[in-house]
Amino acid sequence: MSSPFATGAAVRAACRAGTLTTPTPGLAPGFVQANLVLLPKEWAFDFLLFCQRNPKPCPLLNVTDAGSWEPRAVAPGADLRTDLPAYRVFEDGACVAEPQDVRDLWRPDLVGFVLGCSFTFENALIERGIPVRHIEVGRNVPMYRTNIACQPAGRFHGPMVVSMRPMKPAQTLEASRTCGRMPLAHGAPIHFGDPTTIGIADITKPDYGDPVDIHAGEVPVFWACGVTPQAVLTEAKPPFAITHKPGHMFVTDWRDVELDVG
Amino acid sequence: MSSPFATGAAVRAACRAGTLTTPTPGLAPGFVQANLVLLPKEWAFDFLLFCQRNPKPCPLLNVTDAGSWEPRAVAPGADLRTDLPAYRVFEDGACVAEPQDVRDLWRPDLVGFVLGCSFTFENALIERGIPVRHIEVGRNVPMYRTNIACQPAGRFHGPMVVSMRPMKPAQTLEASRTCGRMPLAHGAPIHFGDPTTIGIADITKPDYGDPVDIHAGEVPVFWACGVTPQAVLTEAKPPFAITHKPGHMFVTDWRDVELDVG
Repeated sequence: MSSPFATGAAVRAACRAGTLTTPTPGLAPGFVQANLVLLPKEWAFDFLLFCQRNPKPCPLLNVTDAGSWEPRAVAPGADLRTDLPAYRVFEDGACVAEPQDVRDLWRPDLVGFVLGCSFTFENALIERGIPVRHIEVGRNVPMYRTNIACQPAGRFHGPMVVSMRPMKPAQTLEASRTCGRMPLAHGAPIHFGDPTTIGIADITKPDYGDPVDIHAGEVPVFWACGVTPQAVLTEAKPPFAITHKPGHMFVTDWRDVELDVG
Repeated sequence: MSSPFATGAAVRAACRAGTLTTPTPGLAPGFVQANLVLLPKEWAFDFLLFCQRNPKPCPLLNVTDAGSWEPRAVAPGADLRTDLPAYRVFEDGACVAEPQDVRDLWRPDLVGFVLGCSFTFENALIERGIPVRHIEVGRNVPMYRTNIACQPAGRFHGPMVVSMRPMKPAQTLEASRTCGRMPLAHGAPIHFGDPTTIGIADITKPDYGDPVDIHAGEVPVFWACGVTPQAVLTEAKPPFAITHKPGHMFVTDWRDVELDVG
């Protein structure tokens, strides 16, 4: 993959300068990209517990101190207020704005949650010769709300959101091995085959992202998805929250290979 | 290994009945044993964050709701107040009692933290033909305070405590691969060789547990240790806390093999 950005730091600098406002897939190849949730301290224990109980959709990479915008573990010196291409602002569970900078919305009680992302395991799949359909056809990954309830934690509860990638059965098995070694990037798939088993009525109509074709001889394979926290925020309705805009991720200094524990 | 207890549930029932008050190594072979920390809710966010930032010494298996003594993820129906052979009660950071039951000390604001334990990876090492010295000689594992600072979180800070097992260099490499696949059981070692590099002045004088011999041709290998939380409690001095008594672990329903993600 060629990218105008060689490192996570370069992507972040472009976001901070306001020159990068587009989605991040393919940028800074090999660097771990991440989901972001910013919540007031008063809601942070419940959400941290929710992530601990639901590590497949919500794998924690870094949690900041209240009031600190610097995710020291994954990107020392970074600024979570400016270093993403675009954000979503939630009030009482509803998205009210999609700014490119949240410095003016910052509050001293905000805690930042940086969560692993499927881009890491997609890169690993491609390196192993397993094609990823939505990347091949230049679309966003299809995502679905399921009938799988997340483990509730305090005020947070809701359904698991999954992403879907179609592949051949043998590829499914290799994908499970590869992704299973990456628990901080959603880990192994949670289901394959019949979508109705997990409450997906129509595989051609994803709840988020774009549909992709499933070819003859392929099965749909489902992974826990980093959009789950946004679905859960919508249900729990905290008065204030900020997330990344889907696809517009925080790019860290960590390398994808560092998330492989196998 | 032969054990009078076939399952974690059998060990817990004996603790609850008051008939088992001794250390748990070797009991219910194949079942995951765990460290326990009970803290008031007012201290729980800081400690949860501490564990998230220090997953090698503090790998989280289960965190209970405030007031609940049931660790639903690892042992549905279990009772953290009665199901361990022995406890330690801390007031202002000092151990003030070692009871065998803490029902009379229970508070509705207590949050339970169940943390992975080295017994899981020791079993895996033995299965792979790597001897574990302190088990061979019937002693407790030697543990040391180091000069490695844990990542602080809120009011919690302090040095990492490590456990040590001597082995041959080739065994060290295999041990690193085996344990690295078990991030919820402290993961790969954090050091081997010269103890003074990590602030251990005298390897023959552990801060906790018993010394063991290092034979010619062996190197000491060091793992992050589940006693770290107790060292950190001593520094942070919360007004009230309860832990397991070292070696007297909570035995879960999970199997050791479930913690191997490789």
